[in-house]
Amino acid sequence: MELNPDEIPSTTRYKLLTGAIVPRPIGWISTINAAGQPNLAPFSYFNVISSTPPTLIFGPGFRGADGQPKDTLRNVEATGEFVANIVTEDLAEAMNLTATELPAEVDEFELAGLTKAPATVVRPPRVAESPIHFECRVTHVLTLGDEPKSGRAVIGRIVHIHVAEEVLLGTDKIDLEKLKPIGRLAGPGYCRVTDLISMPRHPSQIG
Amino acid sequence: MELNPDEIPSTTRYKLLTGAIVPRPIGWISTINAAGQPNLAPFSYFNVISSTPPTLIFGPGFRGADGQPKDTLRNVEATGEFVANIVTEDLAEAMNLTATELPAEVDEFELAGLTKAPATVVRPPRVAESPIHFECRVTHVLTLGDEPKSGRAVIGRIVHIHVAEEVLLGTDKIDLEKLKPIGRLAGPGYCRVTDLISMPRHPSQIG
Repeated sequence: MELNPDEIPSTTRYKLLTGAIVPRPIGWISTINAAGQPNLAPFSYFNVISSTPPTLIFGPGFRGADGQPKDTLRNVEATGEFVANIVTEDLAEAMNLTATELPAEVDEFELAGLTKAPATVVRPPRVAESPIHFECRVTHVLTLGDEPKSGRAVIGRIVHIHVAEEVLLGTDKIDLEKLKPIGRLAGPGYCRVTDLISMPRHPSQIG
Repeated sequence: MELNPDEIPSTTRYKLLTGAIVPRPIGWISTINAAGQPNLAPFSYFNVISSTPPTLIFGPGFRGADGQPKDTLRNVEATGEFVANIVTEDLAEAMNLTATELPAEVDEFELAGLTKAPATVVRPPRVAESPIHFECRVTHVLTLGDEPKSGRAVIGRIVHIHVAEEVLLGTDKIDLEKLKPIGRLAGPGYCRVTDLISMPRHPSQIG
């Protein structure tokens, strides 16, 4: 099948992209608005994009129900800060609850029975139940097209990292079996990270 | 453990980020240089960042051996084009071979025994053995810090999509069991996408 992506419905584009580019990591993004109201929502158009400087990226998009910008986008534009919390298998149901499109005044932490922990450098709260948090300051909010509802890329510099001791191996390795992360697929699909392959990289032939 | 990421060695930062933000999808990026020499390399600082407009992003970084920009970065800067090929379980070994740091004159397609297929809209070749290809035009190459070796974010608009019929379900769904994708973890780690969870999203409470 050959497709010009500009000539297919946006729902088809979305299904193909989310089905083909898998598994995606999940950034469970906590923010606050200008008045301090917290928000929490998961994004799988999310990844680390650079280690030096340590930088995360996510694409918040628009709400399905009314086409309005997601609260997360409004909040990062208003405050310039977010926390990316890591989602584990135990937190999957709570994460999925926070994916519901809700009025801005609903506090997803309360809705999902989650505990707010203060961040160290930024103002949005962390999800206390999550074992890893990346506190970020927004460096870019890019508009990716020239239409009102064009996608955005939010880029944030990591300014502080929290890692729970129980998911650490030594000082710099994360224990996958203890973290039990989940990845995002298409539709209602998620995956556990249990069916592992090891392939050491071949030595450099440069230098 | 609490960390200021600017106060830890870059290798520690890299290990923590690649261990915590998992599983990552793999973009197997084919490019050409200004003279037409092809290059192929995998990147897991990669994802879809927007469906409308359809947009991919990856972070090419620098070579470990000599600290020079990766050929992929030089090529997208010189030509403004790339193809993101999707990696399947059958292609894992070939993909890993193309992750080797090699002199620019080495053609990774030949090294890994892969076949070049012409793209429809852009000049870099596709990996014929891969079932899904996204042809892209570069819209942004962002420098993420103010040091010479600061990470880059390459953002590309998808201008053409190829999907092999055998991985399609209907006209817009990808059959995960036929695609057999792999995800990237830390160190030598990869994962198959076989341990699945289904969590339908809760209905919108807006609109």
